[in-house]
Amino acid sequence: MNHNLVECLKAVKQKTPLVHAITNYVTVNDCANILLAAGASPAMCEAADEVFEFSQIANALYLNLGTLTKEQEMAVYLATRGASLKRTPIILDPVACGAIPRKKATIERLCNFGQFTVIKGNLGEIKALAGIEAKVRGVDSLDEGEDGLEACQKLAREYGCVVSATGKTDIVTDGQRSCLIENGTEMLTRITGAGCMVGALVAGFCGANNDAFLATTAALLTMALAGELAQQTPGGELPGTFRAHLIDQISLINDELIQKRGRVQWL
Amino acid sequence: MNHNLVECLKAVKQKTPLVHAITNYVTVNDCANILLAAGASPAMCEAADEVFEFSQIANALYLNLGTLTKEQEMAVYLATRGASLKRTPIILDPVACGAIPRKKATIERLCNFGQFTVIKGNLGEIKALAGIEAKVRGVDSLDEGEDGLEACQKLAREYGCVVSATGKTDIVTDGQRSCLIENGTEMLTRITGAGCMVGALVAGFCGANNDAFLATTAALLTMALAGELAQQTPGGELPGTFRAHLIDQISLINDELIQKRGRVQWL
Amino acid sequence: MNHNLVECLKAVKQKTPLVHAITNYVTVNDCANILLAAGASPAMCEAADEVFEFSQIANALYLNLGTLTKEQEMAVYLATRGASLKRTPIILDPVACGAIPRKKATIERLCNFGQFTVIKGNLGEIKALAGIEAKVRGVDSLDEGEDGLEACQKLAREYGCVVSATGKTDIVTDGQRSCLIENGTEMLTRITGAGCMVGALVAGFCGANNDAFLATTAALLTMALAGELAQQTPGGELPGTFRAHLIDQISLINDELIQKRGRVQWL
Repeated sequence: MNHNLVECLKAVKQKTPLVHAITNYVTVNDCANILLAAGASPAMCEAADEVFEFSQIANALYLNLGTLTKEQEMAVYLATRGASLKRTPIILDPVACGAIPRKKATIERLCNFGQFTVIKGNLGEIKALAGIEAKVRGVDSLDEGEDGLEACQKLAREYGCVVSATGKTDIVTDGQRSCLIENGTEMLTRITGAGCMVGALVAGFCGANNDAFLATTAALLTMALAGELAQQTPGGELPGTFRAHLIDQISLINDELIQKRGRVQWL
Repeated sequence: MNHNLVECLKAVKQKTPLVHAITNYVTVNDCANILLAAGASPAMCEAADEVFEFSQIANALYLNLGTLTKEQEMAVYLATRGASLKRTPIILDPVACGAIPRKKATIERLCNFGQFTVIKGNLGEIKALAGIEAKVRGVDSLDEGEDGLEACQKLAREYGCVVSATGKTDIVTDGQRSCLIENGTEMLTRITGAGCMVGALVAGFCGANNDAFLATTAALLTMALAGELAQQTPGGELPGTFRAHLIDQISLINDELIQKRGRVQWL
Repeated sequence: MNHNLVECLKAVKQKTPLVHAITNYVTVNDCANILLAAGASPAMCEAADEVFEFSQIANALYLNLGTLTKEQEMAVYLATRGASLKRTPIILDPVACGAIPRKKATIERLCNFGQFTVIKGNLGEIKALAGIEAKVRGVDSLDEGEDGLEACQKLAREYGCVVSATGKTDIVTDGQRSCLIENGTEMLTRITGAGCMVGALVAGFCGANNDAFLATTAALLTMALAGELAQQTPGGELPGTFRAHLIDQISLINDELIQKRGRVQWL
């Protein structure tokens, strides 16, 4: 099955999908740089006067609700509708939906504008959306529960989409097929934006591949492998250096690394 | 007394205080990364519809007025009130209040919503707030006057809070106790956001310590030491490399470095 | 003629021009850091309540329409008027004006508020503004046509300003004088924000020099040389490391490098 993941990565590099991102202003630069490093073409377009049209020319729409200003909220509705009209994949990153009730309300409204292709969050966010009690603190999940897969599957069935929860072990499911990704490094929790970056990557991979379950898995694996490799570079145990090297390593992930080092458990 | 500063740093690492930051979009990523590197938990939450509630679950509120959009201005009032109701420490960074009259007007209004715990600026900003003639240019202070301590003490008494002015020598006072920090490096003026980053750190340290005077001093010393050490790394005399290494070094500041290299003059 | 470019660079370092930037939130930090590295003084001021006054104390105004929120649009009109009243150079970066019709409409309106000193875009953007068919995709130009110089000259005459198109070969013209810059590296397309950064540099150079044609050329050459040098550093072929080293190299560009390595073809 890792063979399919290799194909997903190749497709990104061949098709350079245009990813329309509406994302938080904390990590927006990292999201753009990681998409470029992976071979995708990022466009951060969030002006309410522009997004409806722009969402219709992109290959994927990435919605990250981290710092949702009033204008961004308007943009998110408009872009979801635009992407939906073109059947463009829509990737939702429900940042902090466990800690901030407004996020959840926005997501519930959003469902009336279009259909999500993937919801990717940390386990706390996924549980909060699934209506399961979660341990969250600000934007972070304190949850590493064994009920993670169950929560993802519940949400996948409820929203009819792929659901992914990141954590020590990453989980991906479309309600039927499921897998666990056992790569990664704790260093990814020591910089800001690892969750956002992987969300952007999921959008990039979905913009170049039809099977969103595989595309999401390939994106998460690419991030996890790049994290492992970045940590092993000189200075990679320190957050400032790790962050620069993470982008470097994303650009170096290839067939061989996925085949040899990828530890994906297909359930 | 350096012993107390060591305790302040330890408390950050043990308590991982949740820092609610409303800050400018230029350096917001650096603020988040430096808080993580120091052991705190940053959450950049500035949507006007979210901040009142969020400010009540955080351990400290960091207000940086650098790029104060209309919605951010609204958020700043709401968050100040929320934090105030929970007696959460509020750290004000009055960026460019000497050059832009609206900043000062906003600060004066803010005083009616809650009580600042710390005001941290460069000397030009502190003087401008204290009503003393200051030399400023855009967001930068051209002031290294010997009347710095006096200005800080005046403002501390006026606002009933800790006041700190950064510069070649950093000044901290609560009106009674005062100190000077003689560590640091000119490299911190060659990157954008050093002032914002140290402001965020002050919030992190105040979120984990009750004595805001000591917490502020410890935060400024941590930044100054990390700057010195980053400058001494390979490439540390160049701004792009220095910036990455600064975050690295923040994560390495410990008891021993504070005890051995800290040059704090208690007045 | 490279001698004149050396003088332009020296002027930036001697005068440390205050650059008022209203720019997109994706690359704003990079723009601030590159201006500091070149010797200028950046101030990112975009609150609609502040910009009219602030634009009147700056030495140059940089307008980048990348993520033009409603408040930023208001700010752009106000700042253009303010800068215009003081005859401060105004540098326009018409990001994505080929892909997003609203950008072009905004620019046409802006012409009624003040006179641009320089328009700097990629070739796709310049052609779109000049009313010539362009190949664009999101924020990127797919155009490397031989009609680039013609398009720039047409636009320069139409707007009565210096026009510059970046690409494999950079083009600068004021309608009369023209030149091509043959330095640079493909690595600049592998990070986000190279276009924005060079736009910010153009503003910095115009803030310190009266001849906008030479100042723009010197800014583009500085960026292209720094890119070449950054690519040659250890790790400089990888995007995360390249990005940090690019800022480093900007701070090292000097007379000698411009004289010896600059490949400017004066037409």
